[in-house]
Amino acid sequence: MKSNQEILSELKEALKNRAFFSFYPEHHKAYPEEWLKNGEQKFSKNLGKYFKTLSFGKEVTWIGEEVSPVTLEPLNIKYPASSADSLVKTASSYQKTLKQLTPIQRADFCIDALERIKERFFEIVHATIHTTGQSFLMAFQASGPHAADRALETIGMAYQELTRYNTNIIWEKPMGKSSAILQKEFKPIPKGIGVVIGCSTFPVWNSVPGIFANLMCGNPVIVKPHPKAILPIAIVVEEIQKALIAARLPENLIQLAPDTLGNPITKQLCENSLVKVIDYTGSTSFGNYIEDLSGKTTFTEKSAINSVIIDSSNNLKESLQNLAFSMLLYSGQMCTSPQNIFIAEKGVKTPERTVSYPEVLDLLKQEINSLIGHPQIGVGTMANIQSNKTIETIKNSINLKETKVLNAKSIENAKGQTSTPLIIETISKNKNLIFEEHFGPIFKIVKTISIDESLSLAKQNAAENGAITFLAFCTDEKLKTKIKEEMEQVFTPVTFNLKGNFWINQHAAFSDFHGTSGNAAGNASFADANFVNRRFVWVGHREMV
Amino acid sequence: MKSNQEILSELKEALKNRAFFSFYPEHHKAYPEEWLKNGEQKFSKNLGKYFKTLSFGKEVTWIGEEVSPVTLEPLNIKYPASSADSLVKTASSYQKTLKQLTPIQRADFCIDALERIKERFFEIVHATIHTTGQSFLMAFQASGPHAADRALETIGMAYQELTRYNTNIIWEKPMGKSSAILQKEFKPIPKGIGVVIGCSTFPVWNSVPGIFANLMCGNPVIVKPHPKAILPIAIVVEEIQKALIAARLPENLIQLAPDTLGNPITKQLCENSLVKVIDYTGSTSFGNYIEDLSGKTTFTEKSAINSVIIDSSNNLKESLQNLAFSMLLYSGQMCTSPQNIFIAEKGVKTPERTVSYPEVLDLLKQEINSLIGHPQIGVGTMANIQSNKTIETIKNSINLKETKVLNAKSIENAKGQTSTPLIIETISKNKNLIFEEHFGPIFKIVKTISIDESLSLAKQNAAENGAITFLAFCTDEKLKTKIKEEMEQVFTPVTFNLKGNFWINQHAAFSDFHGTSGNAAGNASFADANFVNRRFVWVGHREMV
Repeated sequence: MKSNQEILSELKEALKNRAFFSFYPEHHKAYPEEWLKNGEQKFSKNLGKYFKTLSFGKEVTWIGEEVSPVTLEPLNIKYPASSADSLVKTASSYQKTLKQLTPIQRADFCIDALERIKERFFEIVHATIHTTGQSFLMAFQASGPHAADRALETIGMAYQELTRYNTNIIWEKPMGKSSAILQKEFKPIPKGIGVVIGCSTFPVWNSVPGIFANLMCGNPVIVKPHPKAILPIAIVVEEIQKALIAARLPENLIQLAPDTLGNPITKQLCENSLVKVIDYTGSTSFGNYIEDLSGKTTFTEKSAINSVIIDSSNNLKESLQNLAFSMLLYSGQMCTSPQNIFIAEKGVKTPERTVSYPEVLDLLKQEINSLIGHPQIGVGTMANIQSNKTIETIKNSINLKETKVLNAKSIENAKGQTSTPLIIETISKNKNLIFEEHFGPIFKIVKTISIDESLSLAKQNAAENGAITFLAFCTDEKLKTKIKEEMEQVFTPVTFNLKGNFWINQHAAFSDFHGTSGNAAGNASFADANFVNRRFVWVGHREMV
Repeated sequence: MKSNQEILSELKEALKNRAFFSFYPEHHKAYPEEWLKNGEQKFSKNLGKYFKTLSFGKEVTWIGEEVSPVTLEPLNIKYPASSADSLVKTASSYQKTLKQLTPIQRADFCIDALERIKERFFEIVHATIHTTGQSFLMAFQASGPHAADRALETIGMAYQELTRYNTNIIWEKPMGKSSAILQKEFKPIPKGIGVVIGCSTFPVWNSVPGIFANLMCGNPVIVKPHPKAILPIAIVVEEIQKALIAARLPENLIQLAPDTLGNPITKQLCENSLVKVIDYTGSTSFGNYIEDLSGKTTFTEKSAINSVIIDSSNNLKESLQNLAFSMLLYSGQMCTSPQNIFIAEKGVKTPERTVSYPEVLDLLKQEINSLIGHPQIGVGTMANIQSNKTIETIKNSINLKETKVLNAKSIENAKGQTSTPLIIETISKNKNLIFEEHFGPIFKIVKTISIDESLSLAKQNAAENGAITFLAFCTDEKLKTKIKEEMEQVFTPVTFNLKGNFWINQHAAFSDFHGTSGNAAGNASFADANFVNRRFVWVGHREMV
């Protein structure tokens, strides 16, 4: 078995190389068969119970209002809830303990925590399915190995930054015949208590980078999950607490802060003067409130409207197949889902001929229909709609006066809230529609007068409304360069010519940055150096020798 | 001669080691005698002239209102001034050129610029003396080698960060029998135009870190000097422009933006939507305005009230000598000058006996008087008062009802505005006085009931009003640890037991961080990784192979 020091060296190389690296195998069959088999049963044991395996104080109330988007039944799990003040007070009382640990001591319990979480991957999978509506495969990958890899990425990055300087040195300044000699001690001082605010669609993946980055940098953490998606991250918090106990550290260095939609405590937590660092995933409006808080270091991932440009392709069918699948995936409920598809009115160039605009629409429709109808792919890939708000958005969008390329319909053989994609056709003039986020399986095909107009709209959209991904089908080298240069100006990465089983929605830990921090989609990038360096402050003491 | 690549490797090691490193010798005799001899004459040639060696457009007005604090005569130098819009437009037109350069190409012209600036160190010295009032030695060190070393530090840090990842890689993800292969390109995308706002006391030292960090990270720079201290940085800008021309690059990648006190353009520059990065040194109120601007990345150094605690000493005379000199240096006009001196009423412990509080005051007074009266040290060390506002502060402080340990008096043998230090004695209850900044040679001795009270006041002060330095005379190991721990909570570095020729005012490039970014003294630290990483954004493009 590798030592943690060896693992951290490996991570350092992986972070630098940006090539493929994965610590936690992303295929579920790479894990003991037993785990896979028992996952659902273990999940079920939580239902209707008090979640008492978490550390909790004497004065708690028991709350919980999760509803499975798959069965539409409440989970009836109750979690121990405390007031914001009480959570902050507890976190504060352990600040000094965490501050005094060395980077390797922190890495030790963080890596141990991930190993413990791994053993519950398959329980977390079903917790994720029954809170987010994700399919088994997506829930496994997103809440399991992909989340653990992202967490490990921040551990590696934090370790690297916390140890980047020689921290105890003798500084000898030659001054002619004599010299001034000072002993210096450089210390990375944690900023203070961190609050990590989760979202309803990716409760684990979006929370673990902030959690582990904070713990590594010495900031006790309060995890505020979305009231509709608590269980997956509650299990994660429980395992981190176990790792802390095993390391003879106070388990309350991480606390769960469940609340309800009716009585939210997020603002009380964020506005507490001892809370210095806030990680947030969610709506733009609340994200803007977080970013504007004075005296806080914030890491946000807000809404994004991702664009696709179809200009030319060496194999249009392959291209559209790939695009169709990425549209279906988790019914467009990913921050990386494509949303606006720009096609110039003169059509799409292929080696054989230019395929006309209406033909391209028809071909895309065919690919989507064929996926929807596919017994092994269809319903499972689209999965369930997480929130009633998304169902509302679909209903409202159906009433839009625009042409429907494909109309949404609910699926009969599914129990929960499911819907096939709604594809709306519009023209480039209709900016209000193009620049509005329609969260869920709602896609807009925008007919433009030229590729330049497509690009200009995509660019403006990224700048104003945010973009995390951008997909272009384009075989012209010059145009590819232009697309990259234009999108760089709005800090949006471009992916070209995907085909086969790799989709625009996918960002890999240790290689792809998730979010650039440069456009309206948020001010954080998972995980660049800023993601950890902004959580602590270097202070250098000196003493004359 | 070393290649730039070799220099950059050396810088990387220096940044990591934090031990003594200096690229530009800080002793003026290490430079050609000729330079030293001709410096004043070269400076004089600028007087009464139009500063035409800078690049300027057709539509400029010629402005300048500098007055020498040494002779009290106007310099009568006119600089080419353009509107904020026109400066930003010009900067914007060269953004792409700078963006396309590689990190080493940028480092090449930046290092060349520093070498050119070096040849004008002694002209800059006199320009600094006659705008800031500094003594020859301080002007030489602060505007010469120390500034160049800080600039080089940011070049090294930026180079390191810009090259920290493999930027062109093949990412091959194993997927059972096949694999997904993507070519990836990671690019550090510059944020946009940078504005660097200078101060009147350290026009070069405080501006070059932001200037070179921006140029390295790909952001064209507009340098907005303080209207009373333009010449020193104008020469620097001229030399950077020459280095750009030599590299066949547009010289307007850096522009000087002089203005007047009556018609300031700073806000117009800062609020321009194309300006994305702002470096600022100056008052807290304007600094807060800068920090609160929406959509800007800011690096501020605002006011600070630095504290000293005298608890115990192995050689009280040596300690007070050292403190006295640091109080005299540039008449307290440094951001690192001590301001509040806390002494507990029970006195100061020494190996022989406890020296009573009144005795300590008397000893400190003696040391200061002996320095003031010293023919080689006195006037030269105190130097001139830069601004009339500081003279006003001294006058107002003289009228305070508190006891004067030492009263300020103007010095007869000096031409310009000079004043001996004013030392006020007060008690710990008088918080308004303690927590107020008195810029210039005004010092407060605070009699406290205990070391704990001293520490608590120093801590509160750092948190609320900012602190860049903190000096403690203390021989008790336990107490030293406590002082460090308390001051770490307000992100203030502690220096212990200085003696001899090293003073609290001094921060060394490549070793000490200047400012921690953690307290009210500002949000920048010269130069941690954030100082460069927040100036650009990583964007990763991908293409399927």
